[in-house]
Formats: sequence, structure tokens, C-alpha cells
Amino acid sequence: MEKIRVSIIGATGYSGKELIRILLKHPQVELTHLVSTSYVGQNIAAVFPEFKNQLDKELISLDLEVIANDSELIFTALPHTVSLDVVPDLLARKRGKVIDLSADFRLKSADNYANWYRKEHTEKSRILLSEAVYGLPELYKKEIKNASLVANPGCYPTSVILGIAPLLAYHLVEAKDIIIDSKSGTSGAGRKLSLDLHFTECQGNFKAYKCLKHNHIPEMEQELSFLYNQYNRNNISDSNRGMLSGKLSGAYEEIKISFTPHLLPLSRGILSTCYLNLVDNYEQDKIVELYHQFYQEAPFIRIFNPPELPEVRFVYQTNYCDIGFAIDGRVGKIKIISVLDNLTKGAAGQAVQNMNIMFNFPEELGLLN
Amino acid sequence: MEKIRVSIIGATGYSGKELIRILLKHPQVELTHLVSTSYVGQNIAAVFPEFKNQLDKELISLDLEVIANDSELIFTALPHTVSLDVVPDLLARKRGKVIDLSADFRLKSADNYANWYRKEHTEKSRILLSEAVYGLPELYKKEIKNASLVANPGCYPTSVILGIAPLLAYHLVEAKDIIIDSKSGTSGAGRKLSLDLHFTECQGNFKAYKCLKHNHIPEMEQELSFLYNQYNRNNISDSNRGMLSGKLSGAYEEIKISFTPHLLPLSRGILSTCYLNLVDNYEQDKIVELYHQFYQEAPFIRIFNPPELPEVRFVYQTNYCDIGFAIDGRVGKIKIISVLDNLTKGAAGQAVQNMNIMFNFPEELGLLN
Amino acid sequence: MEKIRVSIIGATGYSGKELIRILLKHPQVELTHLVSTSYVGQNIAAVFPEFKNQLDKELISLDLEVIANDSELIFTALPHTVSLDVVPDLLARKRGKVIDLSADFRLKSADNYANWYRKEHTEKSRILLSEAVYGLPELYKKEIKNASLVANPGCYPTSVILGIAPLLAYHLVEAKDIIIDSKSGTSGAGRKLSLDLHFTECQGNFKAYKCLKHNHIPEMEQELSFLYNQYNRNNISDSNRGMLSGKLSGAYEEIKISFTPHLLPLSRGILSTCYLNLVDNYEQDKIVELYHQFYQEAPFIRIFNPPELPEVRFVYQTNYCDIGFAIDGRVGKIKIISVLDNLTKGAAGQAVQNMNIMFNFPEELGLLN
Amino acid sequence: MEKIRVSIIGATGYSGKELIRILLKHPQVELTHLVSTSYVGQNIAAVFPEFKNQLDKELISLDLEVIANDSELIFTALPHTVSLDVVPDLLARKRGKVIDLSADFRLKSADNYANWYRKEHTEKSRILLSEAVYGLPELYKKEIKNASLVANPGCYPTSVILGIAPLLAYHLVEAKDIIIDSKSGTSGAGRKLSLDLHFTECQGNFKAYKCLKHNHIPEMEQELSFLYNQYNRNNISDSNRGMLSGKLSGAYEEIKISFTPHLLPLSRGILSTCYLNLVDNYEQDKIVELYHQFYQEAPFIRIFNPPELPEVRFVYQTNYCDIGFAIDGRVGKIKIISVLDNLTKGAAGQAVQNMNIMFNFPEELGLLN
Repeated sequence: MEKIRVSIIGATGYSGKELIRILLKHPQVELTHLVSTSYVGQNIAAVFPEFKNQLDKELISLDLEVIANDSELIFTALPHTVSLDVVPDLLARKRGKVIDLSADFRLKSADNYANWYRKEHTEKSRILLSEAVYGLPELYKKEIKNASLVANPGCYPTSVILGIAPLLAYHLVEAKDIIIDSKSGTSGAGRKLSLDLHFTECQGNFKAYKCLKHNHIPEMEQELSFLYNQYNRNNISDSNRGMLSGKLSGAYEEIKISFTPHLLPLSRGILSTCYLNLVDNYEQDKIVELYHQFYQEAPFIRIFNPPELPEVRFVYQTNYCDIGFAIDGRVGKIKIISVLDNLTKGAAGQAVQNMNIMFNFPEELGLLN
Repeated sequence: MEKIRVSIIGATGYSGKELIRILLKHPQVELTHLVSTSYVGQNIAAVFPEFKNQLDKELISLDLEVIANDSELIFTALPHTVSLDVVPDLLARKRGKVIDLSADFRLKSADNYANWYRKEHTEKSRILLSEAVYGLPELYKKEIKNASLVANPGCYPTSVILGIAPLLAYHLVEAKDIIIDSKSGTSGAGRKLSLDLHFTECQGNFKAYKCLKHNHIPEMEQELSFLYNQYNRNNISDSNRGMLSGKLSGAYEEIKISFTPHLLPLSRGILSTCYLNLVDNYEQDKIVELYHQFYQEAPFIRIFNPPELPEVRFVYQTNYCDIGFAIDGRVGKIKIISVLDNLTKGAAGQAVQNMNIMFNFPEELGLLN
Repeated sequence: MEKIRVSIIGATGYSGKELIRILLKHPQVELTHLVSTSYVGQNIAAVFPEFKNQLDKELISLDLEVIANDSELIFTALPHTVSLDVVPDLLARKRGKVIDLSADFRLKSADNYANWYRKEHTEKSRILLSEAVYGLPELYKKEIKNASLVANPGCYPTSVILGIAPLLAYHLVEAKDIIIDSKSGTSGAGRKLSLDLHFTECQGNFKAYKCLKHNHIPEMEQELSFLYNQYNRNNISDSNRGMLSGKLSGAYEEIKISFTPHLLPLSRGILSTCYLNLVDNYEQDKIVELYHQFYQEAPFIRIFNPPELPEVRFVYQTNYCDIGFAIDGRVGKIKIISVLDNLTKGAAGQAVQNMNIMFNFPEELGLLN
Repeated sequence: MEKIRVSIIGATGYSGKELIRILLKHPQVELTHLVSTSYVGQNIAAVFPEFKNQLDKELISLDLEVIANDSELIFTALPHTVSLDVVPDLLARKRGKVIDLSADFRLKSADNYANWYRKEHTEKSRILLSEAVYGLPELYKKEIKNASLVANPGCYPTSVILGIAPLLAYHLVEAKDIIIDSKSGTSGAGRKLSLDLHFTECQGNFKAYKCLKHNHIPEMEQELSFLYNQYNRNNISDSNRGMLSGKLSGAYEEIKISFTPHLLPLSRGILSTCYLNLVDNYEQDKIVELYHQFYQEAPFIRIFNPPELPEVRFVYQTNYCDIGFAIDGRVGKIKIISVLDNLTKGAAGQAVQNMNIMFNFPEELGLLN
């Protein structure tokens, strides 16, 4: 099979770097153009000596025509609100497909986007909102297959949505009082300098931040609401269906979560601790079984049997999302621990997983290292 | 004023070491005996070279008679379930007072203790349970003043109870659905070796642990229940009393919490993120004001005005407990961020604060470094 | 091509774990037996959840007959002085080849070994000393190809020997006054618990250790002496040969080094700073060119052009040894900075590189991730 | 005794912050003015929440007249080459004394300064060079006592000079082939943002930097040359004098060192490993004894008896310089391990020690915490 030509716009941020790291080992990919604004004219191996002797390619500035012409697939790894100005022009050329790693095409509602990101979608980009597929393969594999534009999910949302999707899809929990306490390594904040991310300030430190208005919230609520209200539950086995009967209907409920992100003194990794109210006295085994059913075609979900729990180091530089459980019978709650590497499953790895699906490669190709 | 003679039983654990670090600078203390089991006969400065040139004292084995005779105050910094066998014999000699840093005298109910710590109180030690004062000066200063035995609180409980005490005491929140997501540095787990605490396993890692049965839970629930049901609210100003009227009575409610501890890749520090349901649409300023009232005589509580939030590094090696707020109006919840150094305010520093109160020294003496 | 069957004795130490990590992706290897003493009967994915969903194999106890019968290659990743009792019996069965990751077969002189490792070679193991090939492919590729027993080098020695080999082989430096200041992450010390490696003691710390008698010294001196006195310099180009003429002969000189290892607060990586006296006013470019010549067939050596310098993070989980230069003309010295990952190029990766050579696979197979 | 009024110019850098931390506990100091350029008008406790409830003071902009009028002592904690423009005008007002933490008044030779720092001294500042005292109390206590301007030493130089001063002063070592391999935490690089100090780039990393031209070199060579050639050796006891006879004279020798700094992934601490050639087969005990003699009036020097070695964590936030020894008889070298906290003994703590000497306070006042 011939390799596909792939370009990266925003190759010198952490997501861009991780895309290169992964794609270098991908047997079906030829890295075509690497676009940067800050490092034009430099060799990628000079910017990231990790790639010395492995990749010898000069960074170029953005020329949409060149990129579109030469690429069957383009990853746009740009800051939020910048993709919005680039992606429509790329797709208008009707050549390569696009996987966008920013938040700009994740929200179905342009108003919601404007509200959280303080920027209005243009007429052109607004049209794309409805066509863009939210790139969470565990939920939307079929849609991703045929998409021209995949909106790759955020790192926190990936950990949270995957962690609790079965609970909401199967109505095992109440739609309210959902608490998400997430902790992330520093690479999630990007390569841009700030005193908050200065080594001397971070080392030995831990803190909460953006306690009320983190802009990953609308994306999580959009998808969790979908799961609770519209998810097709056909893959529940008949035996388990009985157990859930009577719980799967009900009026539409807008899901709202209380989300608190924290900054860990490590570079990669997210752990989300999710607290939800169980609607019944489920046995632990039953819940674990339902997770297995829900994720039976999801090669990157690893379910931990209680009392085993996932840890950040287990997923370092992998595309796995590891999920653990604890049922707190004393207070009628379930705790889900969901862990991933924010740069891999939380960004570049998931993007490559989407690419594999879009180009009919095996879903795990190049991602099992 | 003459110095008091102070001994430490368990001087070579992390709490013992922190006691020494603090007491070395305390103008009213003479360090008399340092007791160890593993390092008998060695000089403390050989075990902890930090103390080289500052303290020249040999570690001795435990001789209750000698210790009791020579000490006006004894800190017992022993593992849980060991203090229980030592403290009654010390106090029976009716000489020095005791501040116990273990959990053995914190729970008022011997059954509760047996249930969580898998050891029965003896007849002798059981008597002490009712006499022992829970050593949280912000709640029990008066009782501590006259105590012979102070049960110094655990590190997690100190951060949690201080963080949410005003909310419960003033009935600003519901008594249920209390979620406590705590993160601690590794020194809280002590100096005993385990693979979990092996550097190569911890560095760059983060994980939840003991998700269901951490033995600090009963201590927190005991004190939170007390605050909700029996706290004397006389220090509420009249203007604020109006705001709370109608919310301060009600049937007795046993407080239960959902508590999840996590292990941070740093040595010192605890940050607890606490989620509670507000019973009303309180303004943020009002709540901050009530915290100031509640803690008006608490020199080690620092209240952060929103949107400022405390961070672990701000309290490194200090006796402060820093408290921050975020009211999540979207879901009717309040989040409290409570931060302290687990070895100082969470153990040895608080023990010295208790000592100061018991011996009529200024509460902050030797603790403002 | 058919896969070879490979077993690991000592699969649950850090080198064993790293072997598994690498071999899982190696297209020519079938992992046959994993031998452990502490974890017999457990699944490897229970011991190391990193391998969950990737490897499903039970750890077995050591049965030489079974291992030898079923394996074309056996990695022995055992503590120093333990391999010595296992390897001769394995090889006596005349089936699989052995790559030993301990120090037990690295030293040509049994007396030297006894002197540094405080254990005598047996009659059987003594015979193997002369047959064993020191597994540094950059120096001994030809010998490794035909070896039955490869003694895989130590982590410090790999960084040091590769870093300064050309200087000694080409007599660019004096044979004396060689200072090696090495810094290593903690995984080099293994998985065995010790207070020195307790997270709370290591985090935020840095120290020198074993300042005088680190047992990697004899191995380095053996190989550096060989390079200085017996190395075949045929690969020097004629133009450069002129430059060196008159410097390549001389009486035999035993190389002695002053070596100081230090412990870094990170898990993986070694950086060695090497100081040597230049015998002439060489231009920097000339020296860099000679390094390129020396390593022209070494795919895992990356030479950094001054003033670029290698850093520990560039080699994380790779099999590269990165080398940088600084000529300190003020004092007539050259500084070499040599960097590698102690578990990969310093242990398991190098072992797999040796395997590739022994089994006629491409040298880089499975190692370019 | 009345307190002295002390001001800090450059209060919001790391040295300024450390000065505040120390001076807050100093019984003889009243913090008068805190000068900043970036944070004028803000409260110091808003910039550094560590000081919340401890110090309530607004940062002001630089007004030399006000500062000079109101201060008996001024610490200038400004970047290199900036102090040079400020200090002469301060001292011209002939009021307070100045302790300058920059490099601008450390070098006796203005040419040497211009050569390394790329800036010329002015006429006014040039005059001060000869008056300024190099603020290393262990060498210049008498001169510091009467100085108007103390040039506080750099962090690396303090660790190196104190570490090897006795060897050079007593001619125990050769004047050549001195290798200094230093490792520092990140706070030494200051609070200014740079990609090198971005947390994600530093964590888990280690590297050498400025291998050839670190601007602390001239300061070290100036002081080491002084020690070797001009040091008054009167404090050698008669018995030891015999041992050294014949070694204490000789022609003047300019000391040159080979210095390599490295960046550690921790915030505070320097460890310098120093390699020197012994001129004789000294017994270890003799050398340790000479160190004790040399430092008999130096309360902040702690000498470790071999084989005990200092570690970075032992000096965290203290003013100690800890020194350890290893005599490598195999190669005729002595290794000195010298450890300090770069912000305390390497900057602010040493500055306060100098202040104590200048104002006739006990040398350790406020520094033994």
C-alpha cells in the first residue's frame, strides 16, 4: 500500500512534536511539510534534537496552496481561535482532509463557542461546524471514517468523557451532581512561556487553576449530554438490558458538571477523578462488565479490575486511556479514575488514531509502541 | 522564663525530624531526650546531617521512667496502634503532658477506632479517649490549654476540617454530598520503605490510592459532624446572624464524606479540593467574611480572596493552612481549596502550636519562620 | 523470516522490564519465558500494568533445562555475582546463546573481578571469561556476531567509553589525568528498596556517591587501556593520519581514571562529563571529523556539532548515545559530554542491539522508535 | 539595641525574595523600602503569597534620594551590569552602606570585567572597584567589617572557593589541572522566562551549559590566585606547619580552572565536585584537620568526615556550606564535594551574614533557622 502524504501546520508546539514522534514510526505515512511560524528555515532536528538522525526537514512558513496540493492529510496543531481562520481555506481547496487539534470545531453551537472562546465563527467556518466530526473514536468511529474535518478532542475532555461515558449512556448514574477533579502535567499548557510554568515556580508545587471557567467545560457537557440523552444502546447484551430497564428513558437532561483542573509537577499525563451518584445499588462486577461491553471495539481503552487502579506512569507516551473504579457504598457514589497521556491519547495519538480510521488503516497502526 | 524540658519518642521518623527542626529554634524549649528504636546509640546529626553543628545528642531507647521523669512535655511520634501501648504508661506517672501524633487517641469511640485501625483499645487507654483533646487549636483552644493528653490531628483531616469548618458550622451547605479530593506529597507516608515510594516508581507519576477506606475518614467525619450539629456559633456577628437565621437549627445529621487521597510526586504538601452543595445563593464576599469571623483568633489560617488561590509552595515548611474559594453558580456548589504542609501544620508544627497553648506561650512562638 | 524464541531471566527488574518493552515491538522476537524469583505465578501485566493488553504471560521460576530447551537466546538480567552461577550451566547445554547484563563476564581478569566484586569466579565460569565478548557494538561488532556469550556493558561504562574512545584510540589526549564526572538517574540503582532511593529522600536532592570505589571502574579502565594501546586505527583517512603521525605509537600505558558518580533526581538518563588533556592544539572541527570517522558504522552514535550539546531528555527511552564537545583552550583540555538512557543504550537497548548483530538482523531493528 | 533600617533594590527577583524571607525573622532589621521595576504599586504579599500575613508593604519604584535617606543599609539585587549604574550614585550620598549582589564590583580589574561582562565600568564606578570588599566572610571578615560597599560573591564561586580554599592556601595541591564540575538548581538562573527554564523542558532533564565561558570564572580565578599566592597562613598550627614546610613558597602562579556548570532539575542547591592534584601523599585525617584549622572561625562551614559526604538537601534554605572529601590515591588526586543553597549561602544568606559583620551583630544572627 502506498504511503499517504501528511503535513503538520504548527509543527513546533508540543502537539506538533508529538505528532512527528508518532508519525516517524508509522509505516503508512510520509511526512511532507512541517509548518511553523517561529522557526521557519530551521531544520526540525535543530529545534528538537530528539529527532537528530531520524528526520531531516526544514520548517516552512504557511502557504495554503502548497500544503493543500501536496498533502492527503493535514494536521492543524494551532492555538485555539487560530485554526478557525486556517481550516476553512484549506478545506475549500477540496484536496486533503484535515484533523484539527484545536477547540475551534468541537462545539456544535457557534454561540457556545463564542461564549467560551471570545471569538466569533465566520460564515465560512460556521458551516464547517455541522460537518466536523468530534474525533473521539470510541464514540464516533463510523462518522470519523467519512469525515473531511475531524475536530480532535481536548485532553481533559478525552479523559473525562471516556471515563464516564458508559455510566451516562446506560443511565447508571444521576444526571446531576457530577464532580470532575482533574490533574494534568504541564505540557498541556503548551510551549509558550509564562511565570506559572517557569521551572522554579512549578517544581515541588501543586495547585488548582481556572476553577470556574476552564474552556474545556462546554465540550465535555456537549458530549456527556449526548451520551445521556441520545446514545444508541444497542450493544448492551440482553442480560444486562434487563438490569437497566426502566432507567434508559426519561426526559431530556442537560448535563452540567463541576470541573476543577489542577497542575501537576510532571510534564505528561492526566488523571481525572470523577464522582457520580449511582441510581441503584449496582454490584461492582456488573458495572465493570458494562464497561467492557461499551468498549468492546475500543483497542485503546484498558479497564482495571478493582481494586487495581490506573496510574499516570502506566500510560506514558502511549495512546491508552486507562480506567479504574471504586464504588463508595457508604455514600452511594461511584468514583472513576481515568488516566491518559495528554499529548498522546489527549492530542497527537488520538489524532493519528483518527487518521488511521479515516484512511482505512488498522486503528492501532503505529500506535502500539 | 525558664525553658521547658521536652522529649520526643519516635525522633527518627519524618514527624520526629520535623519536631526537632522546629524545636531547635523555639526559645522556650530544651530538647531533653530523643528516643528511637532503629538508631539507638547514634547521634541525631549522623542520622539527619541537616542538624550537624546544631544539635549534638545521642538517640536512646525507650525507658518510660527516665522519659517521664525528665520531661515536662513528651511528643509521641509513633506509628498508629503503637502509641496506644505507650501513652497510658507515660501519663500514669503523672509527670509530663503528652502530645500524641498518632491516630490512637483521636476517635472518641473505641469501637470506631477498632473498626478502622484493626486494634482494640485496652482498658487503660480507653479511659484516656474521653480525656484526650483533639488537637486542632482553631476549634479547641480552650480545651487544649488544660489537657494532659492532646491527640494531634492527621494531616488530611487538618486540611479538610479547617477548609470547610465554617461552611458546616454555619450551615451554609448541605450535610450530604460532600466530596473531598485530596492530594499529598510522599512524606505523609512516612520513612518506611515500600515499592510505592521508591523514587523510580514515584517520579513523574501521580495516582489515587486507598479510594474507599483511608483511615483518616472517621476522624474527619467525627469532627465535621460535631461542627454541623454542636458547634457554638456565638462568634457570628449580628448582621451575619440574620443572613443565616433559619439555617442553624435542624435535626442531628451524621456527616459522611466521599474521600479520595492521591499521591503527588513531591515530598511535602497537601492540597484538598472540597466540593459542597450551597443551601442558598450566597454572595462570595459574604462567605469570605464569615470565614474571617470564624477564624478571627486563628493566626495560622490565611484566607485568600477570590480569585486568588493557595498553592502548595506557599506553605512549604510553614504552619499555615491557606484557604481559597470558588463558587460554582452553574451547579450550585462551592469549592474550597485548602493547602498546608503535611509535616508542619499537618503534624509537627501543629503539635508545637498545641504545646505553646498548653504551656501559655504565645501561640505563634517559634512557628513564624 | 521466522521469529527467534527469546527468554529473560530476571524479568521483573528494571532492565528486564525494559527488555520486555523493547522486545514487544521487535518484529523478529517471540517472548518465550519470563523468569522471576519474587513474582513467580503472577502475570507480567499484573506486575507491570504498562504491559496490560499487550503481553499476557505468567512469570515462572528458574528451570535451566526448560529455558535452554525453549530459547534461541536468553537474556540474563540478574544482579552482579548471581549471573556467574547461572550462565555456565545455561551455556553448558549448548543450545541458546546468552546475553548477560550483569558485570560477571565483563572483566578479562578473574583476579580483577574478585578484587572489585568480592566473589571468586568458579572454574567453569572462569573459562567463559576468555570466550565472552564485551558487548559494545561500536568497538566489537565482528566479535559479537559470532559470540555465544556477550557480556553487556555497564551503563556508566557505555557512556564513558563511547564518549572518549576516539580520543584515546587516536592518541589525541594524554593517557593520564582523565577525570570522569558522571550523573545518573535512579533506575540505574535498580528496583531494590533502600532509604537512599526513597522518594522523600531523593526528590529535590543531588549527591555524589561511591566516590572512590565504584565497581564500574575496572571495566572502563580495561576498555580504555585497550583503546589506547591496541586499537586498530585502519579506519583513519589518510589526510587525518598525517595529522596524527608520531602520536600513534609509544610504550604501553595502563589507563587509570578518576571517576565520580552522582545521583540525579530523575528516573532515567546518564550524563558523563569527561575531562582530558589534549596533546596538541587541535582544531575543534578536526576532532569532530575524527569522531565521525570513528563512528561511521555506528547507527546509535549521534555527534553534536559545537556549540550544540546533548541533554538527557533527548535520549529518553532511545538507544542513542549522544556526544558533545568543548575545547577549553585556556587550560589545554577537552571536555566531552556523553549522554544516554541508562536502561536503553546503557542496558536493555544495547542488549537488543547485540542480539540483532548475533542473529543477523539489521542492527537498528526494533530500536528506532 | 535599635533596629537598622534596610532597603532592597530588586526585591522581586529570587535573591530579593530570599532576602525578605531571611530578614523577616532577623531581630535587628526593619524592612524599609522594597524597590521593583515590574511590580511597582503592588503589595509584596500579592507578588509572593508566601509572605501573606507576614509582610504588608507596597513595592515602590527606584528613587535614590528616598532610599539613601531612609536606609542604613541597602541591598542591591539587580542583574549584572545594572548595579554598576545604581551603586555609585547611592554611595555618593554618603548615607547607607551597600551590599551588592551582582557581579559588578567583584572583579578588581575593570578590564577583566569588561572582557567577561561586555560592559565598561564608568569613571565613578571604577573608583569603587578598589574600595569594594569581596564579601566572602570566611576570607575577608576584617575587611567586610569596615566596608561601605560589599560585593557579594556569586553562587558557584562561593561553593568552589570555600570548597578548595585550604588546599590552595596551604599549597597542598598543584596550581594547575584544577577541574570544577558544578551542578546547580534552576533558581540560580533567575526569574526571567526562557525556554530553557520552562518546566516541561527541564523536568526529568539534566544538561551542561556555558561549557567554556561562564562569567563566574574570572571571580573564581581571582580569588583562588589570591589564596595560592598571597594568603596569610598564620593560623596554621605549628605541628601542621612542619608538614607543609617547603611547600608554602614559590613563584607567583596565576590559577586557571576548567569549569563546567550543569543544570539540575530542582529549584535550589549547588553541588561542586572539584578535582585537584595532591602534591604529596597526605593522609586524609591531616587534610581534614587543616580544613578545621582554616575554618575555625567560620560558623557556616560544616566539614564532613570521610566517608560521609554532603548532599544538596542537607543545606536547603540554610546558610551552610558543607564540604566533603575523597582522596583518590590511585591517581594522586583529591576530590572535594562542596554543597550550598544557591539562594542562601550563594546569595541572600551570605549577604545577611555580611550585614551582620558590618553592623557588629553576631555573625549567625537570624541565619540559624
